[in-house]
Order: sequence, then structure tokens, then C-alpha cells
Amino acid sequence: MNRNAEVLCVGTELLLGQILNTNAQYLANELARLGIPHYFQTVVGDNKTRLHQALRVAEDRAGVLVLTGGLGPTPDDLTHESLASYFGVPLVEPPGLWADLQAKFQSRGRVATVIQRKQCQLPRGARVLPNSWGTAVGVCWEAKPGLHILTFPGVPQEMTRMWQATAVPYLQNLGWGQQVITSRLLRFWGVGEATLAQRVQHLLGGENPTVAPYAQGGEVQLRVTACAANEAAAHVLMAPVISELKTLAGLDYFGMGEETLPGAVGALLTQHGQTVAVAESCTGGLVGQLLSGVVGSSHYFQGGVIAYADKVKTDLLGVDAQLITQVGAVSPGVAQQMALGVQQLLGSDWGLGLTGISGPGGGTASKPVGLVYLALVQGSSLSQREYRFGSNQSRDFIRRLSAYSALDVLRREIYAKFTSRDDP
Amino acid sequence: MNRNAEVLCVGTELLLGQILNTNAQYLANELARLGIPHYFQTVVGDNKTRLHQALRVAEDRAGVLVLTGGLGPTPDDLTHESLASYFGVPLVEPPGLWADLQAKFQSRGRVATVIQRKQCQLPRGARVLPNSWGTAVGVCWEAKPGLHILTFPGVPQEMTRMWQATAVPYLQNLGWGQQVITSRLLRFWGVGEATLAQRVQHLLGGENPTVAPYAQGGEVQLRVTACAANEAAAHVLMAPVISELKTLAGLDYFGMGEETLPGAVGALLTQHGQTVAVAESCTGGLVGQLLSGVVGSSHYFQGGVIAYADKVKTDLLGVDAQLITQVGAVSPGVAQQMALGVQQLLGSDWGLGLTGISGPGGGTASKPVGLVYLALVQGSSLSQREYRFGSNQSRDFIRRLSAYSALDVLRREIYAKFTSRDDP
Repeated sequence: MNRNAEVLCVGTELLLGQILNTNAQYLANELARLGIPHYFQTVVGDNKTRLHQALRVAEDRAGVLVLTGGLGPTPDDLTHESLASYFGVPLVEPPGLWADLQAKFQSRGRVATVIQRKQCQLPRGARVLPNSWGTAVGVCWEAKPGLHILTFPGVPQEMTRMWQATAVPYLQNLGWGQQVITSRLLRFWGVGEATLAQRVQHLLGGENPTVAPYAQGGEVQLRVTACAANEAAAHVLMAPVISELKTLAGLDYFGMGEETLPGAVGALLTQHGQTVAVAESCTGGLVGQLLSGVVGSSHYFQGGVIAYADKVKTDLLGVDAQLITQVGAVSPGVAQQMALGVQQLLGSDWGLGLTGISGPGGGTASKPVGLVYLALVQGSSLSQREYRFGSNQSRDFIRRLSAYSALDVLRREIYAKFTSRDDP
Repeated sequence: MNRNAEVLCVGTELLLGQILNTNAQYLANELARLGIPHYFQTVVGDNKTRLHQALRVAEDRAGVLVLTGGLGPTPDDLTHESLASYFGVPLVEPPGLWADLQAKFQSRGRVATVIQRKQCQLPRGARVLPNSWGTAVGVCWEAKPGLHILTFPGVPQEMTRMWQATAVPYLQNLGWGQQVITSRLLRFWGVGEATLAQRVQHLLGGENPTVAPYAQGGEVQLRVTACAANEAAAHVLMAPVISELKTLAGLDYFGMGEETLPGAVGALLTQHGQTVAVAESCTGGLVGQLLSGVVGSSHYFQGGVIAYADKVKTDLLGVDAQLITQVGAVSPGVAQQMALGVQQLLGSDWGLGLTGISGPGGGTASKPVGLVYLALVQGSSLSQREYRFGSNQSRDFIRRLSAYSALDVLRREIYAKFTSRDDP
């Protein structure tokens, strides 16, 4: 007997790209949480023939088939009708269901029209999955021996609540979900995916836990996933692997799960009682926005100057106008004077200066789009970086990578400064 | 021959619910736009056996099979390998591809490791779909007569650009896309969905074009969709409806499609030769980031002060310290002095000041989380707003709504100022 689940989402609006399929992600997450293996998801339109085709493919692969969508009152809502005809049973109206539906409407000061009654027609043998949040009910149904079918409306707020209230206990009663699959996401910045994968290569082949690498927009992630009888046992399996991954990654690791790079910077600043101010040109306020997005950031983030125009760089931050004329606003020296200027102006421990060409215009052969200079000062010590994010990259991408890279350097510098002092 | 497309998304992270399948929606939208029928979407994990199963189901249903994901350098990236073995051809390395990949790394000041070379191994007979935005290339391949296979990396920014640059012309060359479904998105700010829907009610029942309302995070949208033999004919159907919708919405309408609120503000500032500077407390740089995100913004956006700490408000912007003591930093008077201060400091035409409580802490009965004051000055004229975005809303939501609402007021004020002058 198949001990795995499949998800079948029904709706032409999904195939036209009019809505994002958040239901599929929710159900995937839930099945993982319950430890129910889940190998395929299918999306099909509101069409009986194609629904039958999808059922034919899925019925031999899965022990539980979860359907969403197509339960409403309009003619294109065909899910229950298609299930009934596929498995060769008639549609019947369970006693009391129409009265329930009429009462629902009445409680909202409305009257159920006859078209609504269609929602009471369910495959014979199916049990009602009640819907307290909307008008369309679902079913749970052993359509053939070893194949359990669960149906839900497509509206996410109704689907998710019905899932929790009815499907989870139903599955657990069947003896499913005895195991849990749990995962932890480890997050890295300042290292490439392939480099990190190579460094932890011997851990990538494991079976329980598994370790899988991902990369997106400059960040690299490793997801550690374990399967066990319960959460605690899964954590016991994961803990030594996570610990080894962190050790191997060193400072390239910045946080786990929902922990963000600005959050990691904030934690370090708080820990060491330090403050920071920013002087931003190409990022136009993004670094400030990221820092101030962290709850409690008023303890360490003082603010900054958005020095978009050169006049602001010279007048407010004291950048040498002659230097701008001689070497241009996008130069290491200007970044340095911006960092020093904002540190002095706001009286912060750390000053961060960023200047670059985020494009799409303004690039030259010697200073292409994507060239960004970062300067970071603390007391009288200074560190600088030059980045080349690629002249074919988008403005958003370059600005985002500039801001996160700056935060990453800040993180490493704070760490280096206070660790070398604490551990002689 | 099958004249329809199928989408097959590859990635265990999708089946674990770790990421939302935005690629499927994007491709669905694109296929609809090109008028290519699309009846099934499948999601499968990084597993060769199950990828083969999915290919077996799809190969007889579709004429074009679009795959995303599983093209990276790590051992669990199996898409090209699985395609090759399924269709019984070896993997080969097209001449020059490894040199290209090495050059890509070199241009970013990095060195390609040997593990990266895996990404150059493609099914024999497949043509390269170049990827100018990342390291993993895709393929276009007539795997068997009448079955075209297109592969893309799972990273959305890369996938969508490769799709536009390579797949769309490839499909059109094949003579696909005979009818088009085209839509235009009209965007509104400062009006509720229900209010707008009521105002345009007589247009919501149309069949071709259809008009559908959406709302998300403060913005309201109307999507106008038409089906016709070609883009031009679809536009003829849509034009009068769009024109009437704009007229009915008045200033609540700010742009179409990819046009953004910061872009609309920028266009007005440019048109009237005006400059703006911002003083931000609760938004911490977000308004600056939004303004400077627009290409060409250096012509009108001078910069600003991120006055997160009160000391920055008083020292840099000249806000009266006594006023802060008496009425608090979140007050109409402080917003006003921030706007005036930054206008003066940077010498801009417009000065914008924002101060508020973005939470989760810091709220009181009289000044709850979500309370935000905006001041906008131009010359000696001043306009102010008080917002209450709700104390149960998230920090991100409050900051985002504060910034966009401020930009919307700026847009309306510029419009009002220059329209009343131009049209007496």
C-alpha cells in the first residue's frame, strides 16, 4: 500500500497564472511536518476530462490524494462531480447538508439561492469535511481500498483552517503522520555555493539527516532535514551535523531559519554596545532601511545621510569636492570620506560609506555598472572593499547586493575586533 | 501533434513547502500571454526515478515541456542528467561552454572550481539556452519528433530573463502562439478596493475585455484582459475600457503595469523640474530607497537624513529638542520641523518628513503602534497627514504603508500645485 500523499490543485486560474499557488506550498509544508512523504504535485484546470487524466496518473502513486479547488456553486466547479464519475459512483446529497447551508446564509442575513445547492452534492460514500468559514464543504473518502481522498475549497483561508480542524485528525486516525520530517536552514554570506558545498562535501551525501545547498541573490543556504519519530529525536539526529557545518563554515555562517543578516549585525552591535551610522549614495537608504527593520535597532542604529547628490556628500559629509572632480564620486577615497563624515556627524562608533554605479546608465570602461566601493571606519581604523557585481545585472540586484555585502563586512569587522580583543 | 505546453518544476524544496512556486505562475502567465494552451503543471523532487515518471506522463500530453530547477553544480541537481537518460542520449559538453563559464567567474574576480563544470554537461543534440545572469545554462531540445523541451534554472531572476531572451523567440519561431490573451494592470493608491469597484461597477461584468479587481498591501489594482488574434487587436478592445477606468479613478490612478508609485512621483518631479529631499525616522531610509530605485532619480532626488535617533533630528535637522520632550518625537510638529530641516539643509524644492511608531513595541494608548505623521513642505507651503495603520499590523507593513502613503501624498501635491497653475 502506498504510504505517500499527492496534491492535486484544480483551477483554470492557476493555469492562466492569475493567482499564485500558495495552497500547494501550505500543504507541502504540512505533509512534511506530519512526516508524510510527498513526491508529486499536479495542477489541472476546471475540466472533467483532464481531471480524470490527472486522477488516473495519481491513483496508483498515492495513498492519500489531497485536492483543492473546484468546490464552489458555479458550473465550472467540477471537482466532486469528476471524482464521482471517475470512481463510478453517483452524487448524492447527505441528509441535513442543504439545511446547514441555508442556515449559514441566514446567519449572514442572506438567502441561499438554488444554485448554491450544487455544493451539497457529494460522491456517494464520502464523509463531509465541514467548512465553518465558507459555504463549500469538502469530503474525506476512501475512494478505493488504500486510496484516501480529501477535498478542500481553493480559498486559502478556508482550506488551511479546514485542513487543521479536520484533515490532520483524519490522517492521524488512519495511523499516518507517525513520523515527523523536520528541517533547519543554515544561512551564509560571502561564500559561493560551490565553494561551500566543496568544504562540507562529506556531509552532503548523508541520508538522515540530508544536507542540501541552495543559492539565491548572493546568499547561500544549507538545509538540514531529518526524519524521526518526533521533533526531539529529529533534533538529536541533526545537532551534530549542524554543529559541524557551522564549524566548517566559520564566519561565512550568519544565522539560522528566520535570522537575517541585518539581525546578525544588530545582535553583535548590541552585544558589544556599539552604534553605527550610514552614508549611502548608490543604495539610497537601503542599508538604513535594513538596519532599522530589525526590532530594537534604535539601540544601535543612529541614522545616516542619504548622500545621493554630490552636493550632499560635500556639504553634509565633508567629502572633498576636489577629490570628486579628480577621481569621481565612485572611488575608494570618496567612500572613505563618507564613512568618516557620517561617523563624525552622528557621533557613532562605526561609520559606513557606500558609493557605486547601480546602473543601468553611468557606466564606463574603467568604471562599469556594478562597481561599488565600501568603506567602514571604527575609531581610527578603516577597512575598504571594492565590488564588481556585473554590468549586466539589474539596478535592484546591484543595490541589494551592495547593501547586504556592506552589512556582511560590518558583521565580520565587529566580530574580528571584539574576538581578537577577548581571546588573546 | 500536440499544440500545448506543460510545466514541470523540479525541486525537493518545493515538495517540502520551503519555497513558493512563483516560477509556475510566471510561466503560466507567459503561456497565456502567448496564447499557448497549458493544461497541466507538475512538481517533482530532485530524484531521477521520479523525474522519469513525470516525463513519462508528460511526454505524450505536450508539444512543449518547460522544466525549471535542478541545473546547478551540486549532486542533487539532476535535471539534464535525467532528461538525457530518459531519452537515451549521453551527456556531452558543447565546445566553448566551460571556457565561457570560467570567463563568467573571472569577470567577477573569482575562479570556477571543477565542481562547476557539471553545469556544462548537456543532453546530446540539445542547444544551449544562454544564461547571462547566472552560471547554470538551460537547453532547448527537440527530444523526440514533436516534443520540444526547454530547461531553466530555478532562480526566478535568471529563469524569467532567460525566458524572455531565449524561449519566447524560440517558441514563436516554431509558429506557436497564434492567439494572444493580453492584459493590462491599472494601479491605484489612496482608494479602497470596494469603493473603486463600486465606482467602476458597470465595467466589471464585461466579457472581452474582462475587468477584475485585486487589493494587496494598500494598493488596489484592476486587471483588464482581452483575447484576440494579435496584440494590436487586443489593445483595440481594451483601449476604451482602460480610458474610462482612468477617467473614473482620477488621481487615485497612478500607473499601469510595471509603473510604480515612486516612478510616478519621479515622472512628475522631472516634468516640473523639481527636487526632493527626505527626513525619515520610522521608515529608516525606505522612502529614499524607493525614490532612488527609479532609473534617472539623480535628476530630482538629492538625498536625505535618516534621523532614527532623536539626537540626529535635533543636531542635523534642527528639530526643537524641547518640542520632542514636550510632545514626543512622534508628533505633527516634529514631522514638520524634519521636513523643513531637510529642505533647508539640502536646498531642495520639496522636503518630506516622516515620524511614527512602527512597533512591535513603543505604543501607548494615546500613541498606538501604527500612528505615523507625515509633513511635506514646498517653498513655504506645508501639508500634513496623520495615519493610523493599525496596532495589530507588522513592523514591515507599517513601514511600507508609511513610505508609499508619503510618496502618494507627494504625487498628489505636485499634481495639485502644477495643474492649478497651468489650467486656470
